[in-house]
Amino acid sequence: MENVNYLSVVEEVMQQIKSTGAFLVVKSKVDKKINLMTIGWAAFGFMWRKPIMTVMVRKSRFTHHIIEKASSFTVNIPTNDLEEALNFCGTKSGRDFNKFKECNLSIIPAQKVDTPVINLQGFHYECKIVYKSILNPDFLCQEYKEDVYTDNDYHTLYFGEIVACYKTIS
Amino acid sequence: MENVNYLSVVEEVMQQIKSTGAFLVVKSKVDKKINLMTIGWAAFGFMWRKPIMTVMVRKSRFTHHIIEKASSFTVNIPTNDLEEALNFCGTKSGRDFNKFKECNLSIIPAQKVDTPVINLQGFHYECKIVYKSILNPDFLCQEYKEDVYTDNDYHTLYFGEIVACYKTIS
Repeated sequence: MENVNYLSVVEEVMQQIKSTGAFLVVKSKVDKKINLMTIGWAAFGFMWRKPIMTVMVRKSRFTHHIIEKASSFTVNIPTNDLEEALNFCGTKSGRDFNKFKECNLSIIPAQKVDTPVINLQGFHYECKIVYKSILNPDFLCQEYKEDVYTDNDYHTLYFGEIVACYKTIS
Repeated sequence: MENVNYLSVVEEVMQQIKSTGAFLVVKSKVDKKINLMTIGWAAFGFMWRKPIMTVMVRKSRFTHHIIEKASSFTVNIPTNDLEEALNFCGTKSGRDFNKFKECNLSIIPAQKVDTPVINLQGFHYECKIVYKSILNPDFLCQEYKEDVYTDNDYHTLYFGEIVACYKTIS
């Protein structure tokens, strides 16, 4: 396990998220339920004087149901081939499947947050949720509405302060 | 002028924005008024299947007044020493000063958007505004409220699709 500066790997990590995806893990503080989903979109920045990672979850998702009761999330970006698992977790719902079991993925405790990380070879971001923004279609351009939201299933944006960032070799 | 991939320079650009700042330029579509301000916060991501840069402007700012009537913005990150100009544009208002004149900065037309870029040596991002989010303090963590918003002067977040990104040598 090697701690890394979140900016020093941001190019590699963003390319990976864009091309093959990453696992977003969430855990409810109420019933301790854990779920994961595949994300292909994210943002990294420096906002409010803090390192921030932003993820987006549609209202219909089981992950949305859980993250609404969470205070943190983790993003796990595999650097080895987990394409099948990424596909499965991007298309199946945690309401119907135990995705960890189906994909042979195991979790381990995070360093700084309550939500676990996935035991995989790659990058791990531990984020404390500091802000959320429910997407308001009134302020979204028409093109994106037509491209992304024909079903009106809008995203909520979750802004997480990056409290730990490291690379693991399985 | 050299076109660059927005991700390939994101580490350098974010470090620059964090440490010395960058110029955000806005132009009203109504009266064509142009203003600039210094920003020290920003985010880069891949959202809605597009490269996105996010900037934040407080409601009290003259720049806010203008960007609310704009469809684009540019961010100009100097790589030579413009510390004095960055300080001036971060502390003085365009209501009171012609900041371009005071700082000896000139503008040139952008490639893809209506808002000009600054004629300086560095990186230039041209962004089409695709979404804005008015910060809702109800969803912000208490720590950030106390650190950043004791005056209740909240930011609006402007999400810009990056339509051009290049590096200039003066």
